[in-house]
Amino acid sequence: MTTETQARDTIFIGKKPLMAYVTTTLIQLANLSSVYIKARGMSIGRAVDVAQIISRKTENAGFAIGTIKIDSEQLESKDGKLRNVSTIEIEVKRNTA
Amino acid sequence: MTTETQARDTIFIGKKPLMAYVTTTLIQLANLSSVYIKARGMSIGRAVDVAQIISRKTENAGFAIGTIKIDSEQLESKDGKLRNVSTIEIEVKRNTA
Repeated sequence: MTTETQARDTIFIGKKPLMAYVTTTLIQLANLSSVYIKARGMSIGRAVDVAQIISRKTENAGFAIGTIKIDSEQLESKDGKLRNVSTIEIEVKRNTA
Repeated sequence: MTTETQARDTIFIGKKPLMAYVTTTLIQLANLSSVYIKARGMSIGRAVDVAQIISRKTENAGFAIGTIKIDSEQLESKDGKLRNVSTIEIEVKRNTA
């Protein structure tokens, strides 16, 4: 989880402005052929937004949506109970064509 | 868009309680081998929740997440401008195994 490689090819979506994540993702894509945009719970819609902005704006330059995975994670809520939270992972990759 | 077949195999996620969509999806899956859960904008996270609840609760009975697609749609906002809204489509299908 803390290896340098994994930290670099994964962008976690939180509460920053949308375009901050778009920029971060594009910077990583300058060095890597594919990156993963991850989010959970309320941020899932924003992860889709980030991926869509990138694929729309770079239509010709060539980044495309790759594999999309959804899953659940167990998190402890404030009252100490375990709750399931949905997660998403969207691959964005350089077009090979 | 309005053919009877398509209306039946697609569940659009809106503002009803989450379990209402889980029930609707399970009813459709009793007749069909795969259905599509669709949502846009703010409802995208809820679509992932619905799909996850179904795959988690029916682990043995056997429904699984299939192909996931994300896209954008242009919608006219209240001020008359066109805005891009992200969409998601999650396939839920009967396990053939």
